[in-house]
Amino acid sequence: MIGPAQTPAPPYFAVIFTSIRNEQPGDGFDETDTQLFELAQQQPGYLGYESVGEAGVGITVSYWESEAAISAWKAVADHRAAQEQGRASWFDAYDVRVARVERAYSFGRDAS
Amino acid sequence: MIGPAQTPAPPYFAVIFTSIRNEQPGDGFDETDTQLFELAQQQPGYLGYESVGEAGVGITVSYWESEAAISAWKAVADHRAAQEQGRASWFDAYDVRVARVERAYSFGRDAS
Repeated sequence: MIGPAQTPAPPYFAVIFTSIRNEQPGDGFDETDTQLFELAQQQPGYLGYESVGEAGVGITVSYWESEAAISAWKAVADHRAAQEQGRASWFDAYDVRVARVERAYSFGRDAS
Repeated sequence: MIGPAQTPAPPYFAVIFTSIRNEQPGDGFDETDTQLFELAQQQPGYLGYESVGEAGVGITVSYWESEAAISAWKAVADHRAAQEQGRASWFDAYDVRVARVERAYSFGRDAS
């Protein structure tokens, strides 16, 4: 579980990654997931990351300054290797949606 | 856990709802969550719903045909009551982001 993310005022971009995992103990997914999060944070245009998993279904949302930043992140070598391993073994199915965040608002008990 | 959602070709809209819950047994959250999902499905312009929770952090993404459909859903009476109860008790914090899905792709082991 990672998040919630702190993001600037819109507009910015979101990648919504929804997955169905075939959860095999020791398949290396969790380690790679953590490494990718650390790697993403070093990417130009990275804004934030949220990831929650329950009963084999995962939703990860990453936030980016631009579509160019998303394309660059998709092409990073370690990320590409993870995408291939994801299709080969970790995921039974996934959806990737690239969206432009138009507006946002927050609630916080302490900030009220 | 609800999802993943089956959605049509973009463009369409997504509401990304990220929350931090103060999990109190018997606080009625789960029942309301299920009711809201059933209610959302009856709304004009509803396209899909995904919701995952882990360790008090939740990500719910709902998909809609238009921003007007999102505004109408936000104004539904039972939904408004849930929003108020959410701020009063269920959530310590949440973020709502409204985004326009520009492109999407899927992977499925059986569909390959």
